[in-house]
Amino acid sequence: MNQINSHSTSIFFIMFKYKRYIFICLFLFFLKVYSATYSPNWDSLNSRPNPSWYDSSKFGIFIHWGVYAVPAFGNLSSAEWYWFAINHPWFDNGTAMDYHYRAYGQNYHYQDFANDFKAEMFDPNLWANIIESSGAKYVVFTSKHHEGFTMWPSAQSWGWNSVDLGPQMDLVGILTKAIKAKGIHMGLYHSLFEWYNPLYLADNSTVPPQTNTYVQEILLPQLKDIVLSYEPDVVWADGEWEQNDTYWESTEFIAWLYNDSPVKDSVVVNDRWGLGCRNTNGGFWTGGDKWNPGHLVDHKWENCNTIGRSWGYDEWEPFIWYQTSTYLIQQMIITVSCGGNYLLDVGPTASGIIPPLMVERLTDIGNWLSINGEAIYESVPWRCQNDSSTPDIWYTYNNESMSIYAFVFNWPTDNKVTLSDPIPGDKSQVLLMGVNNINHQNTPTSMNISFKSISSGGLQVTLPSLTPTQFPPFVYTLKLVNFK
Amino acid sequence: MNQINSHSTSIFFIMFKYKRYIFICLFLFFLKVYSATYSPNWDSLNSRPNPSWYDSSKFGIFIHWGVYAVPAFGNLSSAEWYWFAINHPWFDNGTAMDYHYRAYGQNYHYQDFANDFKAEMFDPNLWANIIESSGAKYVVFTSKHHEGFTMWPSAQSWGWNSVDLGPQMDLVGILTKAIKAKGIHMGLYHSLFEWYNPLYLADNSTVPPQTNTYVQEILLPQLKDIVLSYEPDVVWADGEWEQNDTYWESTEFIAWLYNDSPVKDSVVVNDRWGLGCRNTNGGFWTGGDKWNPGHLVDHKWENCNTIGRSWGYDEWEPFIWYQTSTYLIQQMIITVSCGGNYLLDVGPTASGIIPPLMVERLTDIGNWLSINGEAIYESVPWRCQNDSSTPDIWYTYNNESMSIYAFVFNWPTDNKVTLSDPIPGDKSQVLLMGVNNINHQNTPTSMNISFKSISSGGLQVTLPSLTPTQFPPFVYTLKLVNFK
Amino acid sequence: MNQINSHSTSIFFIMFKYKRYIFICLFLFFLKVYSATYSPNWDSLNSRPNPSWYDSSKFGIFIHWGVYAVPAFGNLSSAEWYWFAINHPWFDNGTAMDYHYRAYGQNYHYQDFANDFKAEMFDPNLWANIIESSGAKYVVFTSKHHEGFTMWPSAQSWGWNSVDLGPQMDLVGILTKAIKAKGIHMGLYHSLFEWYNPLYLADNSTVPPQTNTYVQEILLPQLKDIVLSYEPDVVWADGEWEQNDTYWESTEFIAWLYNDSPVKDSVVVNDRWGLGCRNTNGGFWTGGDKWNPGHLVDHKWENCNTIGRSWGYDEWEPFIWYQTSTYLIQQMIITVSCGGNYLLDVGPTASGIIPPLMVERLTDIGNWLSINGEAIYESVPWRCQNDSSTPDIWYTYNNESMSIYAFVFNWPTDNKVTLSDPIPGDKSQVLLMGVNNINHQNTPTSMNISFKSISSGGLQVTLPSLTPTQFPPFVYTLKLVNFK
Amino acid sequence: MNQINSHSTSIFFIMFKYKRYIFICLFLFFLKVYSATYSPNWDSLNSRPNPSWYDSSKFGIFIHWGVYAVPAFGNLSSAEWYWFAINHPWFDNGTAMDYHYRAYGQNYHYQDFANDFKAEMFDPNLWANIIESSGAKYVVFTSKHHEGFTMWPSAQSWGWNSVDLGPQMDLVGILTKAIKAKGIHMGLYHSLFEWYNPLYLADNSTVPPQTNTYVQEILLPQLKDIVLSYEPDVVWADGEWEQNDTYWESTEFIAWLYNDSPVKDSVVVNDRWGLGCRNTNGGFWTGGDKWNPGHLVDHKWENCNTIGRSWGYDEWEPFIWYQTSTYLIQQMIITVSCGGNYLLDVGPTASGIIPPLMVERLTDIGNWLSINGEAIYESVPWRCQNDSSTPDIWYTYNNESMSIYAFVFNWPTDNKVTLSDPIPGDKSQVLLMGVNNINHQNTPTSMNISFKSISSGGLQVTLPSLTPTQFPPFVYTLKLVNFK
Repeated sequence: MNQINSHSTSIFFIMFKYKRYIFICLFLFFLKVYSATYSPNWDSLNSRPNPSWYDSSKFGIFIHWGVYAVPAFGNLSSAEWYWFAINHPWFDNGTAMDYHYRAYGQNYHYQDFANDFKAEMFDPNLWANIIESSGAKYVVFTSKHHEGFTMWPSAQSWGWNSVDLGPQMDLVGILTKAIKAKGIHMGLYHSLFEWYNPLYLADNSTVPPQTNTYVQEILLPQLKDIVLSYEPDVVWADGEWEQNDTYWESTEFIAWLYNDSPVKDSVVVNDRWGLGCRNTNGGFWTGGDKWNPGHLVDHKWENCNTIGRSWGYDEWEPFIWYQTSTYLIQQMIITVSCGGNYLLDVGPTASGIIPPLMVERLTDIGNWLSINGEAIYESVPWRCQNDSSTPDIWYTYNNESMSIYAFVFNWPTDNKVTLSDPIPGDKSQVLLMGVNNINHQNTPTSMNISFKSISSGGLQVTLPSLTPTQFPPFVYTLKLVNFK
Repeated sequence: MNQINSHSTSIFFIMFKYKRYIFICLFLFFLKVYSATYSPNWDSLNSRPNPSWYDSSKFGIFIHWGVYAVPAFGNLSSAEWYWFAINHPWFDNGTAMDYHYRAYGQNYHYQDFANDFKAEMFDPNLWANIIESSGAKYVVFTSKHHEGFTMWPSAQSWGWNSVDLGPQMDLVGILTKAIKAKGIHMGLYHSLFEWYNPLYLADNSTVPPQTNTYVQEILLPQLKDIVLSYEPDVVWADGEWEQNDTYWESTEFIAWLYNDSPVKDSVVVNDRWGLGCRNTNGGFWTGGDKWNPGHLVDHKWENCNTIGRSWGYDEWEPFIWYQTSTYLIQQMIITVSCGGNYLLDVGPTASGIIPPLMVERLTDIGNWLSINGEAIYESVPWRCQNDSSTPDIWYTYNNESMSIYAFVFNWPTDNKVTLSDPIPGDKSQVLLMGVNNINHQNTPTSMNISFKSISSGGLQVTLPSLTPTQFPPFVYTLKLVNFK
Repeated sequence: MNQINSHSTSIFFIMFKYKRYIFICLFLFFLKVYSATYSPNWDSLNSRPNPSWYDSSKFGIFIHWGVYAVPAFGNLSSAEWYWFAINHPWFDNGTAMDYHYRAYGQNYHYQDFANDFKAEMFDPNLWANIIESSGAKYVVFTSKHHEGFTMWPSAQSWGWNSVDLGPQMDLVGILTKAIKAKGIHMGLYHSLFEWYNPLYLADNSTVPPQTNTYVQEILLPQLKDIVLSYEPDVVWADGEWEQNDTYWESTEFIAWLYNDSPVKDSVVVNDRWGLGCRNTNGGFWTGGDKWNPGHLVDHKWENCNTIGRSWGYDEWEPFIWYQTSTYLIQQMIITVSCGGNYLLDVGPTASGIIPPLMVERLTDIGNWLSINGEAIYESVPWRCQNDSSTPDIWYTYNNESMSIYAFVFNWPTDNKVTLSDPIPGDKSQVLLMGVNNINHQNTPTSMNISFKSISSGGLQVTLPSLTPTQFPPFVYTLKLVNFK
Repeated sequence: MNQINSHSTSIFFIMFKYKRYIFICLFLFFLKVYSATYSPNWDSLNSRPNPSWYDSSKFGIFIHWGVYAVPAFGNLSSAEWYWFAINHPWFDNGTAMDYHYRAYGQNYHYQDFANDFKAEMFDPNLWANIIESSGAKYVVFTSKHHEGFTMWPSAQSWGWNSVDLGPQMDLVGILTKAIKAKGIHMGLYHSLFEWYNPLYLADNSTVPPQTNTYVQEILLPQLKDIVLSYEPDVVWADGEWEQNDTYWESTEFIAWLYNDSPVKDSVVVNDRWGLGCRNTNGGFWTGGDKWNPGHLVDHKWENCNTIGRSWGYDEWEPFIWYQTSTYLIQQMIITVSCGGNYLLDVGPTASGIIPPLMVERLTDIGNWLSINGEAIYESVPWRCQNDSSTPDIWYTYNNESMSIYAFVFNWPTDNKVTLSDPIPGDKSQVLLMGVNNINHQNTPTSMNISFKSISSGGLQVTLPSLTPTQFPPFVYTLKLVNFK
């Protein structure tokens, strides 16, 4: 008993002696527990702020690439839904089924297309260059779409992935490397469900499901595999709508992602993690596809959209369905004005080519962003999203330049533009951004332009007379310095 | 306290009152536990006797059918090992690799062959007829070979099975139905390992394996699936040699098979259930492929063998490699004499045809068995396997006919055959089985023939003079009635 | 004898009596013989004036479509030369060969591509609409390129044409019908030689050739077949350079075409009819591919050119190789100013799609022509082709409007344009064509603009200040009325 | 004049002096002109005797190989007619069409099969060995069947031959070389018409045809090409029945073949040279396919027959349709007895394999011929073809051995065989050919057997008692020496 006592004493003595180190250790321990631990429930997970890179990126490129690039037929549906469409005529009025029977015959399986998905012209560095030229700051790439074909060698999808079939390449890995080398954030899309995976179909054969074998054996191993192998900065879930988050074990996965994964500090996720989760739970909200509400949303959100109509490559898609560069830039502006990020989709061909008309659009956007980037990337929504009297003028604000940016969608023939909401002051100044070849400068330059306050509030700007080659391209931005 | 006491009392009272029912219940309970329960260890499992149908069948047909039927190239290896051979030139002196590069090119994947595995001429009833005509009493069909391609729609092999690809048919199911309809026992071969399944490769990346994910997620679900779906009477394991039975969880599976499966009363298994199991554990022993020891084995065994050299269809295999019908029948006789079953393999084409030369061989064997069946099917090994002085004479014994059968491989030009081991008695009689067209009978008939005892023991038989069309075919059987 | 005499008398009497009709008949007969008969020599054939529709069309669409649309790989060569390139590495630095071996393997034949040339999305009316929208007035379509694959069911190319293989359609016939229904002239390109036709190779095995079996059995039957079956208004020969016109029997064919064919009144041919014929013999001159001399040519000529670099569809072709709409319109202007026609090529995909970026370019050109058509279609070269002091201004003249058209490639920042060559008079007037939205008109309108004569000759125009949406697109045209 | 006279004198003098030599020269000259020149009419052509090698060969191998080996579906028709059958359901009750739609789909062309005709296992020397082992003395190989696909690089069938597609080999050339190296005569089958050649269809569109463009441009060039390139000893025409010999220009071709071709001394032709020619004109008669009249024909003829039912490889053909070796040997005997040659067909697979069951049959025939060759090869029909009282005994005669050969199809159980037609004499002797292992000889030996004359004429033979291994195989031949 004495001994024990003396022993206790000596422990306390030691503890006392080194108490400063013990405090430090305890501090670090609690710091870690406190700072890093998210619990696997939405309240906890939703409390995590998105890493800042995401909001300041504003513009990303979505890439839908998979076996569907071979038939490349979207028509009334969207190309990546081809497999579903040929089996469900109600989905697209039977157009895909009719086309499939005519072009390939009834005996031709969707799986057979994998042989012709060869990516034989795929050049990851060319893709990275195109994306860099577009001004995008992040990429979201389909690691697996609803067809279940994985674009990396997934052990859970043996014989139905891009290394075992077709391209014979780890496309996720190759592209990740090229994109990251450009300093662009790389994200991965992943479909939670698969249309035809028999394990999922078995789980889904009862409502509600009695098992989640598919999630245990396929989905979670795959999600962890892509996170550990490729360290994506976005995990973009989809195909969640048939089951709730309990089935998918979404909160468990995200808690792991936030607490223990190698990307716990940088990763951001969307909100498609189970029935009822959209615009409610997760990192950023996406609503439905191509969601662009047109007003401020009080949570970070993203407008994922397409250049044409289809997400995957639709060779059939007629030229008239491709949006103009001007329209796409306007959509980006509205999105950013309302607090969203703009994720614009391209669908490469089965050979691995980003169609040149899409490259043209991306190049146009990149050119515009090279002039107007300060109004977009680091911007925040301003107190007004669009102008009270001229509603096709949209605003953003940049804390660094302490400027309001007004994006003017139309140029009046009398050159007079009225802005009702910004309040001019003594030192106020208005600049037209990106005027070419003024004062014999070769690069686009901001041009000081005259304005006057108007009695009802706001100001009236008089735009300059310019020649065609001097005009700023696509959408004209007024930078308002020292306005309120 | 009183209450409790009275309560206790009442329980005992009730128990006492209905004690006869309680005894019956307990009896039935212990009966079930005692009679049905095999424990998942080899001592227990090995103690189970094989169901009697197996020994009395003696002759079965092995069928190797899979994607390998498309390249159909065995050459120095065997056709079903093609995928392995093209990646491991040491395996067959590089012949398959050379052939593959020349015939298909370096870019052509083994998986691509699945598209050409169409089974477009497959007729399960024709197969059943051919097998019935051969006199075989059971079939063992490759549900999955080392390539991993499943011949039924396995949820664990989605996209790499006979319904998703190629034949678009549940080949196991279709064939099982046709075979069983003939009253022939249906068995299934299943490879435990798969060469290229990434889950198996991951498990196998350490020695010994640290995980058995592959077994949990792929193998056991598949084994249970085929047992529950098709109720096979044989589960014929293979591809076990890289791991021990603990890894494969073989004893657990077999215990389930013996205790709880729908085929617990009829099923028989072989011995390939883990490194070291062959000729040691399991239902019947198989040794290596084509194992035919030539002496009595004190445990039920099986000689699995081929008509030519390859197991899967080898189109390249030259005619001279095909064994003659006489040779195959002799092999069957030696096997049965030594206590084994003879499992003879055919390799159908990718179209679903059993090659006609194989059908000819099977038809010949069937003709021979239609005459000599009593000497084979219900026979048991006799005290001698082959004759002491004329070693190419082999014996069996039939308890029902109480006869010894001597199979004579050669017919001496002087018509004198000496049998040293059977001991003649007063009522002894010798019959030559299957003589055609004697006494103007249209069907082969046994013919009484003369013999004399010889002083050194045994007897000398004088074979009759017959015309070519009278001779029994292939191998001549002497039925010795009332010998010892 | 008397009778005969009286008979003779009566004949002469009748002839005399109706001599006026006889004279008319004889006159018409000689007129026909004289006017219609061209002899099979160049002096005679070259004397035929081109039908007037050709010169007044100015703009046509060239279409290169064939089996080469399947590999769709041009790279350093042009896609339709793929078959040649993979066999002749010197041709393109080995890029096509390397690509072919990598993407398809050494064993993959060019002919195998025909199976994948399916034209499954081909819609001839959509093509006709696109071409109509471009403002083109004629089409030249490859009935057969050097590969020998005929786009119609040629009896001389059995098993190597678009009906026997791939599309299973008479593409020439189907397209001809749709194009003609739009009132657009339809022409056919035809390669005289074929790289690999063994009959041609046999002829060509000696220099000079000793036989012309290929011409007799293949070429001439094919040329006559397309003329008789599809009645093209252009026969555009190519692939002539290895042999002289005697070998090809070109003059005999053209004489038949001009004298006896169903298109003898409307057809026009080019100059690629044998070694030494270019820019020397035939209907219009083409020089080499993409020939645009930049000065007036004293014979009708044609600038055949491409939107990108390849003629056939080159999926690999990067976006930066596609010319801008402005550049293409400038090329057209220079060509027309110098007396040429502009034949702009598109390469449809194997599926039958005109790539959308090409459609965009064609639509842009069509929009421009809808404003500036009067300056192009019926125009003739003016006395100056481009301006003496401002050489990037090009001229045409229209006899009907009696106006000079000056195409201004640049818009000076001071809005002052100097034209040195037109001589102003009292009634001279200058109009800027295609100004949008002036006086609240919705359609582009010509705008009267001020100018002053300059002492050294010519005039100086002061361009108006316009807003971006008011500017005429691409290239600005000044219409000079009452100038000399 | 004198000089001339003297000169004349001296010439005559010389002529006179050497007149015997001159006569010889003139004789030889006229002999050659007279003997060698055949006119292009049947009277003349039919007068040419067949080269002697043909009659003394007796047994040849017919090979049907072409694109039809890929579908390999004969069923109710014959495999080489597949292309016709899928388009003409009346031809085979629609079985081929049904099969094609089910197995390949409606969009799959027959021409597409050419890609899968790869001959990747083809070994010409192995074929030559197999044929040599069969005892055959000549081969007839399909250079072109009705499908039009040429098995050599025909310039007239560019893109539809075995060098441009599939095998990429000159199969005719390769096989010719290997066969001739064995000292076996090589012949070529050639179909005069082609089902789908548009030039033939055009000729055939009127009855009678107004043109023979197909013959001029395709057929005659091809026939001359194969004769000049491969120097075949048989030209075996077929597909002649839709047109008469005038259309085909058959007599002109054969006259060239007999007079001027490199094989004029060795070549033999059949009789299928135009409607009405069979069994009337040409070198040997063939009647219909599988024609075996069963009586003596007074003109050399040939029984072309098959092992199973189909000529081209029919994978579907069930085992029971394959004739036994005994049956095939009996057919050969009947044919030879009646003055015919026996041309037995094999259909190799698309891979280039002669199916092993066919090899077995050929090997059996070869073994039989190695014993009984003297009764077949150099034999001539005897005065009786089969026996008057025992009709399943057939006869031949050999002038060299001066023996009659009696082929006994059945072996009576009493060993007594009666031959009614041969007349015994004093020195008559009867031998049973091919008895094994008599007098301990290892090779089959003729065995002298006893007989007696019978009063009604002829003789009765008593066959010996033999053991199974001593019996001659298949059909037993009695050699009758010194009979009449």
